[in-house]
Parts: sequence; structure tokens; C-alpha cells
Amino acid sequence: PALSPATAARTRVAHCTVKTDSRRQELMPPISDAILDTSCILLWLKEQGYDIIAYLANIGQKEDFEEARKNSLKFGAKKVFIEDVSREFVEEFIWLAIQSSALYEDRYLLGTYLTRPCITCKQMEITQWKGAKYVSHSTTGKGNNQVRFELICYSLVPQVKVIAPWKTPEFYNQLKGYNNLMEYAKQHGIPIPSPWSMDENLMHISYQAGIPENPKNQAPPGLYTKTQDPAKAPNTPDILQIEFKKGVPVKVTNVKDGTIHQTSLELFMYLNEVAGKQDVGHIDIVENCFIEMKSRGIQQAPAGTILYHAHLDTKAFTMDREVRKIKQGLSLKFAELVYTGFWHSPECEFVRHCIAKSQEQVEGKVQVSVLEVQVYILGQESPLSLYNEEPVSMNVQDDYESVDATGILRLKEYHHLQSKITAR
Amino acid sequence: PALSPATAARTRVAHCTVKTDSRRQELMPPISDAILDTSCILLWLKEQGYDIIAYLANIGQKEDFEEARKNSLKFGAKKVFIEDVSREFVEEFIWLAIQSSALYEDRYLLGTYLTRPCITCKQMEITQWKGAKYVSHSTTGKGNNQVRFELICYSLVPQVKVIAPWKTPEFYNQLKGYNNLMEYAKQHGIPIPSPWSMDENLMHISYQAGIPENPKNQAPPGLYTKTQDPAKAPNTPDILQIEFKKGVPVKVTNVKDGTIHQTSLELFMYLNEVAGKQDVGHIDIVENCFIEMKSRGIQQAPAGTILYHAHLDTKAFTMDREVRKIKQGLSLKFAELVYTGFWHSPECEFVRHCIAKSQEQVEGKVQVSVLEVQVYILGQESPLSLYNEEPVSMNVQDDYESVDATGILRLKEYHHLQSKITAR
Amino acid sequence: PALSPATAARTRVAHCTVKTDSRRQELMPPISDAILDTSCILLWLKEQGYDIIAYLANIGQKEDFEEARKNSLKFGAKKVFIEDVSREFVEEFIWLAIQSSALYEDRYLLGTYLTRPCITCKQMEITQWKGAKYVSHSTTGKGNNQVRFELICYSLVPQVKVIAPWKTPEFYNQLKGYNNLMEYAKQHGIPIPSPWSMDENLMHISYQAGIPENPKNQAPPGLYTKTQDPAKAPNTPDILQIEFKKGVPVKVTNVKDGTIHQTSLELFMYLNEVAGKQDVGHIDIVENCFIEMKSRGIQQAPAGTILYHAHLDTKAFTMDREVRKIKQGLSLKFAELVYTGFWHSPECEFVRHCIAKSQEQVEGKVQVSVLEVQVYILGQESPLSLYNEEPVSMNVQDDYESVDATGILRLKEYHHLQSKITAR
Amino acid sequence: PALSPATAARTRVAHCTVKTDSRRQELMPPISDAILDTSCILLWLKEQGYDIIAYLANIGQKEDFEEARKNSLKFGAKKVFIEDVSREFVEEFIWLAIQSSALYEDRYLLGTYLTRPCITCKQMEITQWKGAKYVSHSTTGKGNNQVRFELICYSLVPQVKVIAPWKTPEFYNQLKGYNNLMEYAKQHGIPIPSPWSMDENLMHISYQAGIPENPKNQAPPGLYTKTQDPAKAPNTPDILQIEFKKGVPVKVTNVKDGTIHQTSLELFMYLNEVAGKQDVGHIDIVENCFIEMKSRGIQQAPAGTILYHAHLDTKAFTMDREVRKIKQGLSLKFAELVYTGFWHSPECEFVRHCIAKSQEQVEGKVQVSVLEVQVYILGQESPLSLYNEEPVSMNVQDDYESVDATGILRLKEYHHLQSKITAR
Repeated sequence: PALSPATAARTRVAHCTVKTDSRRQELMPPISDAILDTSCILLWLKEQGYDIIAYLANIGQKEDFEEARKNSLKFGAKKVFIEDVSREFVEEFIWLAIQSSALYEDRYLLGTYLTRPCITCKQMEITQWKGAKYVSHSTTGKGNNQVRFELICYSLVPQVKVIAPWKTPEFYNQLKGYNNLMEYAKQHGIPIPSPWSMDENLMHISYQAGIPENPKNQAPPGLYTKTQDPAKAPNTPDILQIEFKKGVPVKVTNVKDGTIHQTSLELFMYLNEVAGKQDVGHIDIVENCFIEMKSRGIQQAPAGTILYHAHLDTKAFTMDREVRKIKQGLSLKFAELVYTGFWHSPECEFVRHCIAKSQEQVEGKVQVSVLEVQVYILGQESPLSLYNEEPVSMNVQDDYESVDATGILRLKEYHHLQSKITAR
Repeated sequence: PALSPATAARTRVAHCTVKTDSRRQELMPPISDAILDTSCILLWLKEQGYDIIAYLANIGQKEDFEEARKNSLKFGAKKVFIEDVSREFVEEFIWLAIQSSALYEDRYLLGTYLTRPCITCKQMEITQWKGAKYVSHSTTGKGNNQVRFELICYSLVPQVKVIAPWKTPEFYNQLKGYNNLMEYAKQHGIPIPSPWSMDENLMHISYQAGIPENPKNQAPPGLYTKTQDPAKAPNTPDILQIEFKKGVPVKVTNVKDGTIHQTSLELFMYLNEVAGKQDVGHIDIVENCFIEMKSRGIQQAPAGTILYHAHLDTKAFTMDREVRKIKQGLSLKFAELVYTGFWHSPECEFVRHCIAKSQEQVEGKVQVSVLEVQVYILGQESPLSLYNEEPVSMNVQDDYESVDATGILRLKEYHHLQSKITAR
Repeated sequence: PALSPATAARTRVAHCTVKTDSRRQELMPPISDAILDTSCILLWLKEQGYDIIAYLANIGQKEDFEEARKNSLKFGAKKVFIEDVSREFVEEFIWLAIQSSALYEDRYLLGTYLTRPCITCKQMEITQWKGAKYVSHSTTGKGNNQVRFELICYSLVPQVKVIAPWKTPEFYNQLKGYNNLMEYAKQHGIPIPSPWSMDENLMHISYQAGIPENPKNQAPPGLYTKTQDPAKAPNTPDILQIEFKKGVPVKVTNVKDGTIHQTSLELFMYLNEVAGKQDVGHIDIVENCFIEMKSRGIQQAPAGTILYHAHLDTKAFTMDREVRKIKQGLSLKFAELVYTGFWHSPECEFVRHCIAKSQEQVEGKVQVSVLEVQVYILGQESPLSLYNEEPVSMNVQDDYESVDATGILRLKEYHHLQSKITAR
Repeated sequence: PALSPATAARTRVAHCTVKTDSRRQELMPPISDAILDTSCILLWLKEQGYDIIAYLANIGQKEDFEEARKNSLKFGAKKVFIEDVSREFVEEFIWLAIQSSALYEDRYLLGTYLTRPCITCKQMEITQWKGAKYVSHSTTGKGNNQVRFELICYSLVPQVKVIAPWKTPEFYNQLKGYNNLMEYAKQHGIPIPSPWSMDENLMHISYQAGIPENPKNQAPPGLYTKTQDPAKAPNTPDILQIEFKKGVPVKVTNVKDGTIHQTSLELFMYLNEVAGKQDVGHIDIVENCFIEMKSRGIQQAPAGTILYHAHLDTKAFTMDREVRKIKQGLSLKFAELVYTGFWHSPECEFVRHCIAKSQEQVEGKVQVSVLEVQVYILGQESPLSLYNEEPVSMNVQDDYESVDATGILRLKEYHHLQSKITAR
């Protein structure tokens, strides 16, 4: 390890510590909790002589931010930044995930991993602005998150030094094991949280380790917080009309009560509310990990799941099938890059550009029925649709010839549509 | 067109006609029905002077086969073959689809397209056995199915001639249009069926054209036949344990009542029964077509949907993540080849071999809860799991070093597992 | 076939006929020659009652254009357009092929297939300008070119009708066979050309059929026209410095004599001259075909081969390796699309956009030695190089840690370079 | 770092040291030489208290093995293993590279990287046989090779500990810098070698660092050792007939003098001799590296280059074009895996299986002319050829219809060929 905090501490330094649920998922169960371990790290860094700037991102998690601010100051931070990055998260990260229809290993909407670059970007902004020489994170040497976090830090501020207490023997030898950590927490008045690791943000909530960790176990009934227990879901569907432009939702209308949401953050939060009530977007999977082996986790992504399906349908309705195949390959790559922490890499920038390009004509209104864990597509319309009623309809016997098998008909329709678009 | 039936008819020929729901999906709404149009074709071919061998595949559809046999003979077939290909369909076609996790355009389990090579193989066997020089099909010049069907015919029996009445002016000029066809049917005592195109087999049922054709319309309430209306689904989940070997289900146990099914066809039918009751596997999508443009269809695939999810989880639990990525690319190709009718091509044989190879260690038992349109994974266990409790667990702070980021840990686990497998 | 020329001819129509070496490659050996068969077609179309506008593209082939004009008028064309599309061909088609490093089946620089959309675009412009209702081409029903040509025609002018005499029984029944065609030619004073099919343009020359057709045969010694017989190549190398901007050559300097060429067409022709003298770019391959099976052809692409190598080196020097891998997949797709005639398709437009995007930083000067069939790279420099002398150099033992295996170093270098570029 | 050699040395251990040109390419220029740095490491490890088993692979490099044995013993090895792995290298590694047509970044035949798993496998065999607890290598912390080497060691013998002196501060602080190393070498009588890094094996020779390191520089004239200076190449071509079975060469016949070679190692060495004389297979490239950035190297791979071209042609002649496209994607992956050191990974095992499967019908005889840096294909024949003279030939106007564009003709030919093969 490049840096021994003990020696580094001799020079007076500003230090950004990271404090948010979203980046300490692999930590020390069964008492893994952001507040606990981040607080311990904060205290420990202070003991090593660092000047600490605490940073906490509000990325949509349910959290008492003022309590967190007070605790940070109490435990020794010189300064505390609590930054609301929710809107950036939706517009710059979630929207691209929706456009790409990215799934990790066929099932997982990447809810945790999309937050990494969003949270860290803001942290590195503060790091540069405040001239901090070190940044710290609370992930362990075992997990994926250390790599994701450090890749981003070094990409954005190459000269920074990362301090990772859980990879530092002086720290982990002192605090490892349940009793040691509890002891340390008690001594310093740090509250003891829930018995499993939880990661929440606007896009999703996940639970890992502790009880759900063994894949033979079923999830405990009280675990769900972002979606409702399916047994308690209402019996009537919600009917929503979602309008897309360039592959991104721009308007959500509740068909029954006429409610309309048109800005990114608001419509996303509204979809979370509607879909959460119906337990939409709940999955329980074994996930392949980046560095280590497999891990089991329960994931809930209500709004993301509705948009995933609604976008698929709009795409099928408006995107050429061959463009779609090429884009599908790029989306697999995108999912992998997000998962492994390479958002700020040249390849990810390239892939994001290409995916966005593929969405230019993904435009339309789709009606969905949201009822008890399921999203049904009810109907579709689009001014840019490749769905040309005449040719597909089975009602007309016309002069199609077998030569159409080569694709001539598809190209004719495409160029016909292009000329209509140009004419607009 | 290669063949003018009028002249061909002068030589006495044996003729196989195709008669099954599963291959005439694009036909002539609003009166599209297999029995109707196949009957018309049979009669018309007889009028052209052909000797007709009728063929009907039993591939799991609900149909009165004896009625069909009687009608075929009544309308002029010299001989009728009604062949039950259900078991071949499950073992040689559906199992590979499950192993590959193939989805067409992210959503569609390929239920219709998997039947094509299965049905046609048997037909071509009869064609060769009976020395028929011609085969006929009832698809039109507009749709995908003509290409799928003809590709397979010519692949398997290169010297055969295909007669496609709906591409033959003498036929379609006489029968096109609702009134003409109705008239012709009435004259010959052919019954008039339901107003939309329906395609049923063991794997799925789909509805196309007629009312559901316009994507702005919602499906009519009475449309569901393979799954139950969600409003009527029971309130208690069924808990099933599904055991996989080499990526294929070999045993299904109902955990509550202890029912066990262990042969391919029986366990698949049992899953259809359980999942259908809960309305699992219902989708309503706009599909990209091969030759023409987009079309809208409602699809139901109850057993296939359960197995898709259960297999995904077993795969995640036992398959190396990098092998999976490569296999994922092959599966996209496989889905495309099935969709476009290239099952019997060299590339599809190659891809099927590779996918089967990738499944050698996909083995384990997965518990699923089937409740109201949703499949939940409850738990997983496998003797071949890459899920090694120690390394993933967050409970242990051990000597993982950052060098593991290169993949050394993954390879260690893999070779460790291999040595255990070899030792068995 | 949609159109019977005999009946179409009853209405007075303007007709564009195609007349260029570049699109009639599969024709009638052993007397396959553009002038011969195009002349026959022209005469035959006139006999069917069409008004004919002849069109000949100058795309860099050696041809007596005035002689061609005279012959066209003599054989009955109402009007003759001879259009020089060389510059468009280099800038809009060849440059993209260079940027993509596209090879068909690992070896073939796509010289013939790049011309198809270029030639046909101009023809369709004339077709629209002159209000012609029909276009004609001289490819047969057997080859790839019919599909390539017709795909483009229908893409660009959907309502046009294509007349393909070699797919029209009235034509080919009259003229098929050596004697018939010779007879017809003699009767109408059409000259008899060389005994094999040859396709020449700025990018390459290919020979097919006739003697070289059997893959067991070796090419006859006198066959080379674009490159020199290697036995006669000079003994001293030419040293060229080629400068790239955005992946495209913008300047070629002959290091020995100081000659400089800076415009696209001129520098490409100069490279053809230098490389042709040294027999660079000569290949003799079995090519997989689109519709039919394999065919053997000899290909020469002097300038293209130099640029292929020089661009590869500049790319390796300036393009991130992960971007390159993604782009490589897109290039395989691009090569396939060019080969199969889908230049004007939505997927090709998308792929071309993405490839061009990947080239934004491919900039630098590369020195190459051109000597006797081989291009050697001598050296490389670039302001946008990712080749950072310090990190790669083996001279320095520095503080690289094993964590670099995760890719942190690569990202640091990339963002460092980006900041330098932004600063420019 | 896991292991401090100083403490480890307290227990008496057997130690395998690695001593071969092929794995120390990034080392300490300008005095980088295997003998030098391996000798220094050997001496240094002995000083740390290890018992040393020296290992040197004979993988086709020109080297005085007896001199190496003497030196190893002189510098303190307890035992020396000099293992000839040439035949395994050809049959188990090079042949697969030929089958896959693998190029790294479009140009590089992977000559260096193919040796890694071959050399290390044998080393790990000895390690296990002798019960050694440590293995050592002489690559630095900066380069790609450390990862490649360590991945393989840990894959094959998970419990082994790797000692990497160039990543160990105690070692590199003492020996870094030209003067220190020279001093240490002189003190111990270690000979001083050539001024650049050279890596030789049967497949290729490469030069890196020192003079050729700066990409602006041209290679010094005396650098070539595996191929002849092109200026001195003979003026007459060698004509070889190469016979392939399952994508692998099984017989090489010199057409002029009748010489025949039929075993893998002998025919490969013979091709090296013939091609080397003509300077075939010489490239000079900037290579993207795995961990660090770009590096420049000169590569020569005479036999590999001939086989690459001959195999491409046999493949084009006998392999279906769509199988080829899928296999091409797998080959890109294979090249990446070889390059990054993942030969012994599950994904590489899977990819190798699939590639070998694709080669089952790649069989035939190809004649090549080898003259002055160029391989010309002269002709091809194969009993398994898809080149069916009738359909491709332009001499026959037959009944091909446009429907062939769908691929029916291709499938007919394939199944026709399959039935012929089955009949054999």
C-alpha cells in the first residue's frame, strides 16, 4: 500500500472522507452500517492526525441528513458537505441506463453501480476545490467497490492519494471482529444499526450479507422497504402513459386521475411511488462479482423496472431491428463497464456516445398497466414509428415478392420514414 | 416462381400438405384460421390434380385431432398423418432455448419459432418416406414464415419443390378478400373460426392480427387461454423446487404437496399448469419482423418463463462470469437464427454445440415461488457452485490483496472446483 | 418478376441503363466484358421500346470514355451521362474504409463493394432528375451484385422499377451461351473483349472467372495491371511520410524527393502510383459470396494497402486499446454491410457514425518504407499519442503497484491526455 | 506484498527460479538480458537463504543450454532442469493460434504470449513434483508479464507463493540503475549481454526497448536474426504445398525439390527456415499493452505468417461464411485472453473448445509461393470444399431465383456436402 496514514498525518492535510450508504456495501456484517463504519473511520483518521472534510451525497436514500451532519462534526470533521446529487443522478446516469436497456447478467438494472461515478464525481469536485491531497473510502480489500471507487478517483484527480482504512493493517487489525468494532463504537457513542447491509438510492434498494447472504435462505418478510409486500398490494391497476423523446421519458400521465409529471426527477420519483405500491421491480438474485466470487442479493428497482419495459416497447416500435442488434452488443459492454467501475474511461465515453446516437428516433407514448409486481404494456403510438400499418397488417394481400427477403422492403420503409422526418 | 401447379399437376404426384396452427400465423385475417385456410388449400390443390398426403403435427396445441383427420379426408387427402412431436419438441428444441436463455429482442421466448424446425423435420421425413416431390405450406408471400419454412424444406430435402398457394396468383386471385374466401368455404362446408390469428404449442400461445393488431388497442379480456386472467389468480403461491443438470431441468418437486415430475415432457406440462394458473409468462409486445416491419402480438409462455428464471439463477450460481459473457453473445446469435428460420444451418449447429458445451456444469436445485404473474427465486444450492461461502462472505476480513483485481482469485476458485469435480 | 419489359415498353419511358466495369462482374464468361454485355442490353432494351439514358461512372478505371459515349449513342441511347465520381469515392467511401480498417474475411479491402453505393447514388440522382421510371443493370440472377444494386436503388428511389435483363427469360433465353451472344454482338458490331472478368476502380482491380476461376490454377503472368510484376519491381524502397487527422490521410510526403500531396484524390492516386510500382497490395483469394458459394479472385489494392497499414499503426499509437476493441467489432459489422450492399441502411449509417467518432484522436505522422510487395512501418509520432515515453519505458523502476492491473494507470494517462487536448 | 523473502528464507525451502529469454522482456534496459537478470536474481535469492531449483525451457530459442546449466550451478542453484517443450509448444499452443487466425490488434501473431502458459505449465509440474513452496520470476511490477505469469502459477498451483524480486523493495532498491546492476554483475562474474531486450522462441523473435524503443527511431540494420535482411533475400520463390486437416498443417511439400515434412515440430521448423530466408513475417509495430501504455516492438514470425495465410485460404475454401463470422468473434476473444495471460481460465478453455470444433472440416491442400517478404497463395483444393464449381461459375446461366438471397442455396450446398462427408 502506497500510503501509511501514520506518516502522512505528520503534514497537516485536508482530507475528504466519504460518507454515504452507497459506497460501503461490503462492510463488516453483521453490524454493517454506513453510519457505524464511516463514523469509525472518521474517528480513526482524526486520531491519525488528518484534517477531515466529511462528504455525504443525497442520492435519494431515506436518511436523516441533519443527524448525519451533527454526528460528523461530533466525531471530528472540520467541515461537512451534504450534497444533493439526485437530479444529476437521474439525468446523467439513470437516463443512459434506460436508453441502453442495460442489464447485468440478464436481470440486474445496475442500481448500485450507477451511483458510484455520480457520488464520486461530486466528491472529487470538492477535493479539488478544497485542495485536499487525500481521499478516503470505507470499502474493504475484498469487494468490487474498492476498485470502482479508486478507478474513478484516480481518473478524475490523478495526483490524489486514496486512504482505504479497511485495506490498512493498522486499522483493520484494531477494529476487525464484531466485539472490537462494537467496543470501539460504544466508547465513542456511535449508534448500532441493522444487521444487514443495505444500499439505497433513487434507482433501487439492495440488501446483502447478514441473513440474506446464504443463497439457500429466503428473504425475511420485513425486508422490503422500497416496494410493498406483494400480499398487501392493491387490487386495482394503475394505468400510466409514459412519453419518450430520444429514448428518455419526458412526461408521465396517470390516465385515471390525470396527474402529470414532466421533469426528470419528479417523474422518476412518481414512478417509484406508483410501482413501489405494487411491488414492481423486485428481484432476488445470485450476482457474479468482479473481484470475488458470487454473492446473493435482493434488489428492488420500481421506477427503473417500469421504464425498462416501457422503453423496450417504444424501442421495438421505433428502432430499426438491425440498429437494435448492434446497439444491444454495445449495451452489454456498457453494463459491464458500469459494473466494473469504468464509467469515466475512454471506452465508456465512446459507448455512451454511440448508445445516445441510437436513441435519436426513439419517441412515442406507451400506456402501461402497473398491477401487483407486473408491468403490462397496453398500447403504443409514435410519430416516428416504423410500425407501418399497411405492410404488417395481415388484412392486405399485396404484391410483396420473395425478393423482399433480402431486406429491400425494410430499407424502403426506413427511407420513407426518414423523408417524413426531414420534412417536419 | 419455380412451379406452376397447373402444369405440375399433369404428372401424378404425391403431395404433403401442411396442416397445423403453428405455421400459418400471418394468414388472412379477419378469418384467419388454420382449419379454414389449410382446408381451402387442400381443396384447391386437389382441384389442380395433386394427390395429397395431409400432415398435422401435435405439438401441444388444444385441437380435435380426430375431427381434423376426418376433415382432411373429407376435403380430399389420400392419406393423413397426425404425428405427436411433443416430446421431441421439448427435448430437442425447448431445452436448448432454456440453456441459451435466448430472448428475441429482450423479451420474447421464441415460442413460435422453435416449432418451425420441429414440425417441418417430421414433415420432411414423411416426404422422403413417401417419395413426395412437392410440399406445400399455407403462409403468404408477406410474412416471415414462408422463409423459415422453405429454408428448412430445402435444407433437408434439396430436390423438393415447394408449392405456396398464397404466393401463387392462380390461388390468391381467386380467394383473396373476405367475401371470396367465405364463399369458397361455405361452398365446400369448411367451418368459420375465431376472428384473430392464434398460434399455440407446448411452449406458448400467441395472438396476432384482428383486434390485437393495432398497437394502440388493448387486448380484449377473453383473449387469454394459456394463462388465467390475473384477476382470477389464486392468492397463495406455489413453491416449486426445480433441479437442473447440464442446464436442463430434470426434476420438479412441488414443495407443498410433494408431487414430483421427472421426465421432460411431463415436467414441462406440469410447469405449464402451475404457471398458467398464476398468469405467469404473459407479455404483450411489438415485435420486429424479419421481412416486413413491426407487428404486435400477445404472447404467453408459462413453463418457459419459470424455467427461464430458474435457469438464470442456476447459471449465475454455477457458471463462470466470463464464460457467461461469451455464451451470452452466442445466445443472441442463437435467438436470431431461430427467429429467422436457420435452425438447420451450419452456423446454428455450431452455436448449439457451443451453448450445450457451456452448460456442462450448470447443475443445482432452485426453489421458486410462483404467485400472480411473478416468479420469485427463493434459494439455490449446487454441488458445482462457484459460490464459495468463505470468499464472498462479508463476515471475514482476510488476506485478499488488491492484486486479486487481476482475476487470480477467480482462477484459483475455478481450478479448485475443477479438481473437486474430477475427483467425483 | 414484377415487370415484363415487353409490356412496360408500350408506354413511352425514360430509362437509365448502367454502364460501367464496376457492376457487371459476374457476367457471362468467357466473354464477360462490360462493353459487350452492357451494349447487348442497351440494344435489347431499345428493341423492347424503352427510351434509354445511358450512364457511365468514372471511378478511376482505365477506359476510353469518349469511345464509350460514341458506342452508347451508336447502339441507341437517347442521352449519355459520363460522371466523374472519383473524388466522392475517395472522400465518402474509401476514407471510411481506411478509418474502419475493414477487411472482408480477414484479407479483402472491399475495393469492389465500396464502389456500388457510390456509382448507384449518382445514377439514382440522374434517375430522379430525369424522371425515369425504370433503371436497369447487367448483373445476373446468380450473383451478389444484383442484390447490392437493387437494395440501393430501392432505398434511394422506392418507387423505381428495376429491369434486370439477365434475370428476364425473354433476354437470357435469347442470348445465353457463347455462340448466341457472339452472334448477337457480331450482328450489331459490338467489339469482343478479354477472356476474363475484370473490375477496376481507384481502390483496386480484381480479376475473376475465365482462367483464374478454378482455384487450383495459378494466375497467368500477364494478368497484373494495377501493380507491377514483382520480378520487375525496383530494388530501392520509397520512403513516404503519411500524416493522418481524424483517421484520414491529409498529407503524403516522399521523404527522398520532397514531393508533397495534400488533397484526397491526388494523394490517393500518388500512393497508387508508388505502391503499384512495388507490387504492394496484391492478393489472390477464395472469397465467400453472399448468395452463391465461394469464388476465387485476384485483387490488387496498392494505395489502400499502404493506408491500411499506416492507419493501423497510427491507431495503435493514439487510440485507447479498449475503444479499439469495441470499434473492431463495429468494423467487422461495417465490412459485412458494405459487402452485402447495405451501405444506405439505418444500421450502416449508425455504424459509420460510431466509427468516425472513434477516430477523433487518430492523428499523427507515420513513416513507411514501400519496397517489393511489402509496407514497413519505420516510425511514428503524434501530438495525441497515448505512447507516454515514461511509463512504458523499461528504463525506469518506479512506483507502479500491482493495483495498476485494474486499469488505473491507463485511465490516468487518458485523462492526462484529455486535459492536454482540451488545453490546446 | 504477501511474502517477505527475508523471513520466508528462515525455513528451508526448495525454490524454482525461472530462467529463459521468454519471460523477462520488460527488464532493465539498456542491459536487459535474461542471463544477466536471472543470474542476479538467482544469486540474490540464494543470499536470502532459499534453496534454488533452476528451470530453463527450451522453446526453440538459440541458446547455449550447457553454458546456462553451468552458470546456474555456479551461481548457486541446487539443481537445474532444462526442459525441451518445443513439441508441446507447437502442438498445444501454436496450432490453436493458427486455427483461430488470432491476431492481436490486427497484426501481431501473439508469438511471445503463446509461450507463457507453455513454459509455466512445465515449471509448475516441476514445482509440484519437487514440492517447492515458492516460485520466482524476473518480471517487473510495471509490465504485462508479471500478471500473465502469476495468473498461471496460481491457477495451476493455488497454494504456491510467488516471489518477484523486481517487485520487492529489498531487491530493486539494491540493484536498480545501470551502475548498480553492472557492479553487482561484475562482482559475481555475470556476463554483460546485448543492449536491447530480445525474446525468441519457435514462433517468433521480438525486440523491444533500448534502441528500438522510441517509435520515431528505425530499427538498426543488424537487428534481424530470425529472418534475412530483405536486401539479401534470394530472387527465386520457394513453392510449397501445405496440407491441412482439422485446421492444422499435417504435411509440407517443397514442390521444386520434393522435400516432405509430416510431423508438427519438423514441418514448423522447416517453414521457419524457408520463410526466414525470404524475410517473410517481419513486422514493426506499436503494441497496446495490458497494464502500462503503448510500446514499440519489432516482431518476426516466419513460419507462423505462412501458416496464417495458408490457413486463411483453406478456411475460406472449406468453412461456411456464417460459421466463420461467429468464429471470428471467438478468435478476437481468444487473442485477448492469450495476450492477457488467461490461457488457463474457464473462458479460454471454452473458447478453445469452440474454435477447435469450428475446424473439423478445414481440410485441403494449398500451394503457396514464398518470395521476398510475401506469401502468395497459388491454388487450393479440398475434398471438403464448399467451393462447388457449378454454382459459382459464371459460365452457367441456370435457374437461380432471387429467393436464393435468403440463403436457401447456401443451406442446400451445405447439406449436400454433409451427406457426402457422412457417406465417406
